[in-house]
Amino acid sequence: MVRRWNGWGEEEINLPLPAGALELLKQLLGPGTPPLDARLDDVLATLPPGRLPHHSLVVTDPEIRLRHSRGQSLPDWIELRSGRVGRVPDGVAFPVSSDEVRQLLGYAQKHGISVIPYGGGTSVVGHLTPVGDAPVLVLALSRMDRLLDLDEQSHLATFQAGVSGPRLEEQLAERGYTLGHYPQSFEYSTLGGWVATRSSGQQSLGYGRIERLFAGGRLETPCGTLFMPPLPASAAGPDLKELVLGSEGRCGVLTEVTVRVRRRPGREYFGGCFLPDLDAGVAAVQELVRQRLPLVMLRLSDPQETATTLAMAGHSRLIRWLEKYLTWRGVGGNKCLLLFGAAGSEPEVDFARRRVAQVVRCYGGVMLGSKPGQQWYHTRFQVPYLRNSLWEGGYAVDTLETAVPWSKAVALAGELVQSLQQGLADIGERVHAYSHLSHVYTDGCSIYVTYLFRLAAQPEENLRRWQQLKELASRIIVRYGGTISHQHGVGTDHKPYLAAEKGELGLELIAGAVRLFDRHGIMNPGKLF
Amino acid sequence: MVRRWNGWGEEEINLPLPAGALELLKQLLGPGTPPLDARLDDVLATLPPGRLPHHSLVVTDPEIRLRHSRGQSLPDWIELRSGRVGRVPDGVAFPVSSDEVRQLLGYAQKHGISVIPYGGGTSVVGHLTPVGDAPVLVLALSRMDRLLDLDEQSHLATFQAGVSGPRLEEQLAERGYTLGHYPQSFEYSTLGGWVATRSSGQQSLGYGRIERLFAGGRLETPCGTLFMPPLPASAAGPDLKELVLGSEGRCGVLTEVTVRVRRRPGREYFGGCFLPDLDAGVAAVQELVRQRLPLVMLRLSDPQETATTLAMAGHSRLIRWLEKYLTWRGVGGNKCLLLFGAAGSEPEVDFARRRVAQVVRCYGGVMLGSKPGQQWYHTRFQVPYLRNSLWEGGYAVDTLETAVPWSKAVALAGELVQSLQQGLADIGERVHAYSHLSHVYTDGCSIYVTYLFRLAAQPEENLRRWQQLKELASRIIVRYGGTISHQHGVGTDHKPYLAAEKGELGLELIAGAVRLFDRHGIMNPGKLF
Repeated sequence: MVRRWNGWGEEEINLPLPAGALELLKQLLGPGTPPLDARLDDVLATLPPGRLPHHSLVVTDPEIRLRHSRGQSLPDWIELRSGRVGRVPDGVAFPVSSDEVRQLLGYAQKHGISVIPYGGGTSVVGHLTPVGDAPVLVLALSRMDRLLDLDEQSHLATFQAGVSGPRLEEQLAERGYTLGHYPQSFEYSTLGGWVATRSSGQQSLGYGRIERLFAGGRLETPCGTLFMPPLPASAAGPDLKELVLGSEGRCGVLTEVTVRVRRRPGREYFGGCFLPDLDAGVAAVQELVRQRLPLVMLRLSDPQETATTLAMAGHSRLIRWLEKYLTWRGVGGNKCLLLFGAAGSEPEVDFARRRVAQVVRCYGGVMLGSKPGQQWYHTRFQVPYLRNSLWEGGYAVDTLETAVPWSKAVALAGELVQSLQQGLADIGERVHAYSHLSHVYTDGCSIYVTYLFRLAAQPEENLRRWQQLKELASRIIVRYGGTISHQHGVGTDHKPYLAAEKGELGLELIAGAVRLFDRHGIMNPGKLF
Repeated sequence: MVRRWNGWGEEEINLPLPAGALELLKQLLGPGTPPLDARLDDVLATLPPGRLPHHSLVVTDPEIRLRHSRGQSLPDWIELRSGRVGRVPDGVAFPVSSDEVRQLLGYAQKHGISVIPYGGGTSVVGHLTPVGDAPVLVLALSRMDRLLDLDEQSHLATFQAGVSGPRLEEQLAERGYTLGHYPQSFEYSTLGGWVATRSSGQQSLGYGRIERLFAGGRLETPCGTLFMPPLPASAAGPDLKELVLGSEGRCGVLTEVTVRVRRRPGREYFGGCFLPDLDAGVAAVQELVRQRLPLVMLRLSDPQETATTLAMAGHSRLIRWLEKYLTWRGVGGNKCLLLFGAAGSEPEVDFARRRVAQVVRCYGGVMLGSKPGQQWYHTRFQVPYLRNSLWEGGYAVDTLETAVPWSKAVALAGELVQSLQQGLADIGERVHAYSHLSHVYTDGCSIYVTYLFRLAAQPEENLRRWQQLKELASRIIVRYGGTISHQHGVGTDHKPYLAAEKGELGLELIAGAVRLFDRHGIMNPGKLF
């Protein structure tokens, strides 16, 4: 299995767009023409040689360097697909232990080399792009993927931090446990990367964000090792784990991570329903999240996303029949799809399902059974493959996300979608945008916006379009006081907007704290702040 | 209503020991003789004059200074009761706004004055004792107690940080909401103090520790104002709130705090049951906490605490009958009392109760109905008044607490209790000690140890006894890798043990981060690190 060097996932896996999807996009955005992709060999031929002094753990093969040079953001894709790739790392090391990581940090510090920790390479905000003039060493943790300890009494599992989602769940499943952390990048992203970027899984409602799952670990920093003992709770001063969470490789390299795991649930259920409109959907979701039910997911699509999902679902006759039925039930053109999941014992799941049905009906909704939930569940990690197919159809797709208190959520989601739709009007291009509220909390929710636009022939123009839309949306988020990222981190792309959230004093503090770990500034410079 | 200047609570409230309690203590520890208490006027006469330059907001009345000089730790009591009080603050200010707090910080910085923020004065680890040679100003926040904003859509309430527990719940109750944070100090302690010391309420299983409730706020620091916007979640870098949580007044003064509140539950239920022994109790509690039930409390007494509770309960005939019944049901001399609470809607509470009963029976336990739970509920804030009565009977009582993963909990609790019992054997004094697991998590629990010993006539000897026991217990906690505090903070008393938990690099980081807020070190010096 070989991963695409300039797109998502395995080379052998192609996920064609559903029937009618290209037709729909043609109607919405105009016909697409894919830009010409560069060939791997041609790009490799342009790479300058690496500038690192010899080290037995460092490889400098051009293809390995290129394959560790970028993440999965749209700007990353534009560079790789066009072949106009800026700086790539000068070498890559694949340490197998904390000892080797320490050795490599010492080597980097001695020679003034910047270090970029690399997990699964799935960053969508520019965490992996080399910044600055110093030579760059990528520390790829893919060989550090073992379960080191499972404390079955305490439900605590300690892994090497480079373990990917599937390897982690596989090792836990052998012992009857699960972590339950399923970001969309699950198949490649790593435990250390989840911690370093404050990741949130699709079932975080039940299992918790990585902040809650991260119980302790080991961080190798240029100034020494920070051990974070796994404690259920502590009142002994500030929690240093919270400085490491979201540090995006600037403090050091996580080599071991202890997580809170649980017994695999006896029963899982994913289902769907429609609410008559977004306000009713929000009210239902608020009520459900404020009860303490064994729900693991509540995901509410806005009317635009609901319509897009139905239009793209294929089965057009079935959908037409469904639409008629729903209209008869009073759920019409503004309807919103709500997906939900429950996990636990049989009676817990039954209890949760009954409460969902009660609440949904109370807000005029219609239950749909398990079909939509199952469909979502089985394709949840395949969705990113559609990015490949869309690109090849001449369309760019990107997403952005934030979180705000409930009192601002509906207005912000609406303004983001409407503004993005008009965001390229100055050049006569249309944008198709829609959103869902994917992670819900008692006090607010995340807003996840997807937007599609046509690709131009020139990479500069594609980047310009993306920048225009990104800036437009980010400014709206800042105006509403939302976070610039609910689940992807800051990297380079969100850096300009961080001061609005943290304040100047807050940013000074983060920078100051990072300097205490990394006096010479070798760790992932240019990211976060 | 006047608060005791040298003991717990209101002067008018006396809670006599239950019948037979003194008799029991006499048997266990020998007869007690209370040391002679100093008179307030005599202590005031010994106070040196304050050394602060004039400021219109600063008062220097000796009684006010004395009343803001200490917390409620046993060493604090020993000083106050004996009248041999060390340093007291040179002045006290009662600001009414963030503006006044900023003014006072400017004044302190200009004149090299140390500042001790003061909430309800209930610290039990020495947070309030003046340390160092600089003049000391106490910033008492008691006049900052208003609800500033209630966002009913988002269930977010913003208070001035000096609001006490009862004032906070009263203002929320008027609007139909609750925070649900009930530390034993609830009647006096303040929201700002809860955040600054990482407090945990008795119902944190349901409502969450203060870390989860604290959504945002405003910190006035010597370097400026830090605003922490209330966000349901964020992946935008390290969470600065987590630096403020547990900062114990060293970073600045919290003036506004936004908390996650909820609708008052329709139903609350507190009940009790017995488990045959501690292992069965732990197994039952682990199973319950790992189900996602609407429980708000699970509190498991060890056999010693259970026996003490029964012996102290009064009603000796009823208790004898109960013991007989329990023995017949197979729950004998090693029995452990489990108190539990549930809150939510009627069906949620019923569901939780049924599950508790199922699990308890499955581990050979006996349900007791609501009586023990109700009893606990109605006296939960009165218990500290027993400290007064015990002192007056000639006995000192103190508590200590930690948290560890489940795999270490039973062994650590046992070793703490056994070692404390023998902790004064060198001077031929006995100690009565017992414990409960009061806050439970999926991965571990807190251990709360109570210990009683006889008071000597001399304050130095009482302090020495306390220090000997405290050091003994703290070393055991460190050896097990437990946190030095689960819910009370570090202050001065736990400072020597913090490096074991945070590591030297970790401590440097905390100190470095604090310096970024407070370059001249005026904020609560000598506490935490």
